[in-house]
Amino acid sequence: MNRKTKPPGSLGMLEKLAIRVAGLQCTVTPGLRRKRICVYAGSHGVCEENVSAYPSEVTRQMVLNFLSGGAAINVLARHGQIDVHVIDTGVVAIWPEHLTQNPKFFLRSIRQGTSNFVREPAMSPDECLRAIEIGREQTRIAIADQIDLIGIGEMGIGNTTAASALLAALCGICPEDVAGRGTGIGDDALRRKIEVIQVALKKYGGSATGQRGLYWLRNVGGFEIAAMTGTILEAAHANLPVVVDGFIATAAAAAAFDINADSKKVCFFSHRSEERGHGRALELLGVDPLLNLKMRLGEGTGAALAMPILEASTKILCEMATFASAGISDAIEKDMKVV
Amino acid sequence: MNRKTKPPGSLGMLEKLAIRVAGLQCTVTPGLRRKRICVYAGSHGVCEENVSAYPSEVTRQMVLNFLSGGAAINVLARHGQIDVHVIDTGVVAIWPEHLTQNPKFFLRSIRQGTSNFVREPAMSPDECLRAIEIGREQTRIAIADQIDLIGIGEMGIGNTTAASALLAALCGICPEDVAGRGTGIGDDALRRKIEVIQVALKKYGGSATGQRGLYWLRNVGGFEIAAMTGTILEAAHANLPVVVDGFIATAAAAAAFDINADSKKVCFFSHRSEERGHGRALELLGVDPLLNLKMRLGEGTGAALAMPILEASTKILCEMATFASAGISDAIEKDMKVV
Repeated sequence: MNRKTKPPGSLGMLEKLAIRVAGLQCTVTPGLRRKRICVYAGSHGVCEENVSAYPSEVTRQMVLNFLSGGAAINVLARHGQIDVHVIDTGVVAIWPEHLTQNPKFFLRSIRQGTSNFVREPAMSPDECLRAIEIGREQTRIAIADQIDLIGIGEMGIGNTTAASALLAALCGICPEDVAGRGTGIGDDALRRKIEVIQVALKKYGGSATGQRGLYWLRNVGGFEIAAMTGTILEAAHANLPVVVDGFIATAAAAAAFDINADSKKVCFFSHRSEERGHGRALELLGVDPLLNLKMRLGEGTGAALAMPILEASTKILCEMATFASAGISDAIEKDMKVV
Repeated sequence: MNRKTKPPGSLGMLEKLAIRVAGLQCTVTPGLRRKRICVYAGSHGVCEENVSAYPSEVTRQMVLNFLSGGAAINVLARHGQIDVHVIDTGVVAIWPEHLTQNPKFFLRSIRQGTSNFVREPAMSPDECLRAIEIGREQTRIAIADQIDLIGIGEMGIGNTTAASALLAALCGICPEDVAGRGTGIGDDALRRKIEVIQVALKKYGGSATGQRGLYWLRNVGGFEIAAMTGTILEAAHANLPVVVDGFIATAAAAAAFDINADSKKVCFFSHRSEERGHGRALELLGVDPLLNLKMRLGEGTGAALAMPILEASTKILCEMATFASAGISDAIEKDMKVV
């Protein structure tokens, strides 16, 4: 990298990203040509608590929108030449027959929605492991399809509440600081959302054991969140780079890091979202996102915008001239090294 | 934009960018398919003052590198499917015959380097106008070539000193706060750079008239900086969106805004560079850059990374489903509008 025709370090984060990918791929000419985003969808029992601006039904409707190509993630993925998989991890829905034939749509529903975690754990321990396995499977499929870069995104009305509770528990952020307006809730719903998180922390806080990631994922998480955790865990074994979308995906990453600290090496955080607790969570996880475009949509939209930048970084290593190849004099190269 | 299947505002800056481009193009289905970056190169007399880590000769060598496709801008432009024009506005160089035939290379040299502005004005008034005209010409060529989005970048050893002096004068930032390490100078050179700017502000400060932009551009600017100013000024007449690269291009924009305040409407600032005064300058100009990747290379590299994001924003308007087209119920749409 320092032999390329530029002052050392002058490409900033691009240089660091390229070097990380080179390390994962064990080559000085890394490549991220084939890209895919997995959008995991799941319904949330906690919607009963009126913590969202939208009815839970929108989760199903948005999955249909993903499959017909009209959602923001479809537009941005097409733009970045990124393949999209949609995975039903547990949506309240009965899908029309013709959709079940779609090779990009994976029917892996564990149950039609998690339980309301204010009353009982969101999932049983077994359901949680099965949800993680859904995500692991996508990583294996990606590797079989020779995907170089996998992204994780989600859809699930109510899931900022689940993700906030998870980040509060795993990163130690207080509910008031982690809970945000999600899709755009008013003051009353925000107050209720904070209360819900407080109740959950109290209800499950006493019985936390060593396995914090799994424990909290099961109690306050969501099927789609656990699946994203699984994608990261499996990717860590294969050194497959993962682009983490926004707030919810960051909560999934926090759980993954707790389960296997080594999984951090494959994660690239795409953006800092506008969701209240995201900046603080990223900071506590010690990661530096690529973008800050004030987005807060989810679906993998941040990942879709970050992937081409990550790919660009690898091309710096592969395609840029060195001082020697450009015929720029040794004296100057020496100067540059000293600088 | 608010009818698209997403909570209003949830795509953050993307929504605002798309709306601005739609306004410039006078259509609700804007497009930024054809993209070009103009890299203006010029040599600087102020290099005599030892304000750069690199010999002035590197400007010529890097132009050769641009023309053979091995520089960072070439790599990133290819990645973003962006055309590159290289314009010699006044490099100390005699170009080999075969290069002068290159249709992407424009020989518009005004003089082999500006004067050392510590001793005398960098340019004569006529030279400054001719340099601006070089940039205007590129905008006209872009329009003739049906380019939808033009970017401005530069190469010129010594030009962070010129740009710092320009921003100090036009934005009122003090020399210590605006001068940075450029290509990577040490403490001694930085001290000298600050001194040079102080001397220039004093030398030319007394005689500033109403025409601040032109006046300072001529006295402390550079041929390539004035050319970038010209590109913006001409683009403003045609409502052609311009992507402004980093620190030096921002100084050119500051001069353009002073000459014609209306030119701000066409400018999209690509990134906040690591160069010391850039953040403050952007703030004082009241603009919000798209990226913050800690880059400080110039050449148009920031513009090359930002252009695809700008294009993506327009596709949101063109390709995303509305609530109606996606068959999501009116009730929900109404809810969303209320939010």
